[in-house]
Order: sequence, then C-alpha cells, then structure tokens
Amino acid sequence: MKVVIPFDAREPKTRLGPLFTDEERQEFARAMLHDVLETVTTTGHDPTVLATKPIKDDCLDVVIDDRPLNSAVNALLERIPEHVALVMADLPLMTEAALRKLLTVTSEVGIAPGRGGGTNALLVAHEEFRVDYHDVSYLDHLSVAAELNATVDVVDSYRLAVDIDEPSDLSEILIHGDGRSRDWLVERGFELDRSDGRVTAHRRSTPDQSPLDQH
Amino acid sequence: MKVVIPFDAREPKTRLGPLFTDEERQEFARAMLHDVLETVTTTGHDPTVLATKPIKDDCLDVVIDDRPLNSAVNALLERIPEHVALVMADLPLMTEAALRKLLTVTSEVGIAPGRGGGTNALLVAHEEFRVDYHDVSYLDHLSVAAELNATVDVVDSYRLAVDIDEPSDLSEILIHGDGRSRDWLVERGFELDRSDGRVTAHRRSTPDQSPLDQH
Repeated sequence: MKVVIPFDAREPKTRLGPLFTDEERQEFARAMLHDVLETVTTTGHDPTVLATKPIKDDCLDVVIDDRPLNSAVNALLERIPEHVALVMADLPLMTEAALRKLLTVTSEVGIAPGRGGGTNALLVAHEEFRVDYHDVSYLDHLSVAAELNATVDVVDSYRLAVDIDEPSDLSEILIHGDGRSRDWLVERGFELDRSDGRVTAHRRSTPDQSPLDQH
Repeated sequence: MKVVIPFDAREPKTRLGPLFTDEERQEFARAMLHDVLETVTTTGHDPTVLATKPIKDDCLDVVIDDRPLNSAVNALLERIPEHVALVMADLPLMTEAALRKLLTVTSEVGIAPGRGGGTNALLVAHEEFRVDYHDVSYLDHLSVAAELNATVDVVDSYRLAVDIDEPSDLSEILIHGDGRSRDWLVERGFELDRSDGRVTAHRRSTPDQSPLDQH
C-alpha cells in the first residue's frame, strides 16, 4: 500500500526550539523521519515523502508541495485513487505491529488518534475523504467520515498516539524508542531525569566531554 | 480472571485540586473507578477493589489495605497464587477491547505502559513478580521481569496509556470517553476549549445556569 508521510522540511519541530539549535531541529526531524520510513519499508510497504521542499536523498520517493498541509495532502488524495495511508513523520515509536494495525483496517477510514485530539495516522479507502488536520482533527475526521457515510475503525495504539512535538515528549523516545532518533538524542547528551518526581529528558551540559577530560 | 483495581479512597487525584473542590475530586475519582469496574465486569471478569479505606458500595468486592500502593499490591500478589491483572482506577478510556489485549497476553508478564514511563496495567502470571510503581515503573517492571527470566509482552494501547492525573488530561475524556466520568465532567460544565491553539478542558463559569437565566 502507498504510505504517504508529510514532512515539513523548512521549519520542522519549532516547538523544540528551546532545546535545540536550528540545525539540530533539522537533524532530529530527519532522524524521526528515518525511523518512520524504516518501519514502513520493513513492513513491506511503499513510502512517499510529501515534503515542503526538496530533500537530499536519492533513495527516497519525494513529492514536493509547498502548500499548507491540508492542501498538499488533499491534492495527493485526489491524484491517488487507490487506498492510501497517511502517517506523520514525527512518530518514531511506531513499530511494524502498530503500523499493521492501521494498514489492516478493513473499514473505509482508519484513524489513529494522537494526544490532544490530533490525528497521527489515517487509512483512506474512500475516494471522497479529505483531511483537515487543524484543531481537534480526530473529531473532525470522524465527522467527515460520518458525512460521507464511510465506515470507520479507530486504531488503538500508544505507539501511534505519541507524536513528538514538545520537549516533554522526548522522554517517550528515551523510554520506548530504539531507532535513529533515540540514538541521536543519546549522542547529544539527553538522558532520563527522574529527579523532580516526574520523568523528563534532560540534556547533560557537556555531551561531548572526551574521556581525557574525565581524569 | 481476577482483576485488581487499586484505589486511593482517602485523597484521590490531588493534582486535580486546582480545578475541583475536595468533594468533586472524590466524586470524579469514583466516577472513573465506576467506568473501569464496568469495563472489567462487561468483559466477563471479576473485579476486586484494593482500597485505602472502606468504600460504601455493597455490590463491590473491596479489600482494605491502608499501606502504600506497592506494599498493598505485593501483599495481595502473595495471597493470590493464580494469574492476576492489576488495572489502575484512573483509566476511564479503557474499553473492553483494550482490556482484552492485556488479559489475553500469554507471556508471564504483560505490561501496558502509561505516559511518562508509568505502568497503567499489568498481567502477572509469574508467582515471584512484585510491583514497584514509583519512578519510571515501566522500565523497572521490565527489569524485574528480566531478573526473573519471565517472558514479557508489552501491550500497545492508547486507551490503557491515558491515565487521568492532571487538568490537561481531562480533554482526553471529553474527546474519547463515553462513560460516567465523561458525563460527570459535562454535568459540571466542562467542555473542550480550542481557543489557544491546543485543546484543553475548560469549565464554564456558570455550569448550573438554568434555562430561565438564558433569556
């Protein structure tokens, strides 16, 4: 099945700004995209990245569309008549099993909600279904499906529900992740901090300290 | 299967204090417990509430133990030799399907993680397994199982992952819930607020306004 992964290649993950430099935000967003792509490929499906500007990667199938997310996705849905899955690029905890839950939905629409009423992954098998990712998009997508009399399955998956938007989300990668985005965080000095009663991702101040400095 | 639901009947849900009166916290905690109990019962299983003080409900099987959570749960695990499920009382989004994911685990330990590395539900089929709910209990429980050479299944469920601890969690009930705790929130004037770019549960200032007042 065609799995489309929208990706903001211009200003990804702005809400992580307090923790990362601009370059780090780009790197980290690419690491998460890599994790998502790897899961899609390993599951035997065919990923297309829908990017806001060109991505340097010869191996990737990339469609460029610099319009806002809804317009770009809906234009793609019009061009692809068969079933399409839409998976966000910031779901590094997604496993093959979690993705399969979505891709094996037999209803006309499958929805994996994100935290706060977002929509993290969709399976679209109804040719008139269009997306609206703003606001409480999970409820909005249920309404769109209801207006079309489309059958719906809601996919219950924590690994699809955890999108990485804010500093407080990074601990989820350190706890549950095992891919490139976790490696990237660990290499940059992030570790779990349990000191203040809740778990956060804390960055050590000297991540690049060499062994010699420790004497 | 015996499903044990630990419940703090003394000071439940203290972190909801900014939104609720003390009496409301008690009521709301009981509403969530009711939703959990109903799902357990509907799924055909046998709930026991492990409460810190007596609960007025003749229909409930209640075990009283006023010790801290770990001690109370582990004492119970010692007394019950067969398989036991441990489900937290603040999981009002739990559906029959989500609970079945846990109860059909065939490994010696089943773990449904909560957000932030917590453990929201456990299936214990290894007689030496003991709980430790503090800190990043999800990772700790994986370690406990590894030390026992116990087989483990991690249950991937958003509905088991969402525990209701803080004001920001209430919107999840308004979005996904359909039980008594949702009704309770709606009756108390809570509604989704989409005004500041993210979705929150907002309480109207006059929840008890009568129809006459609206003229």
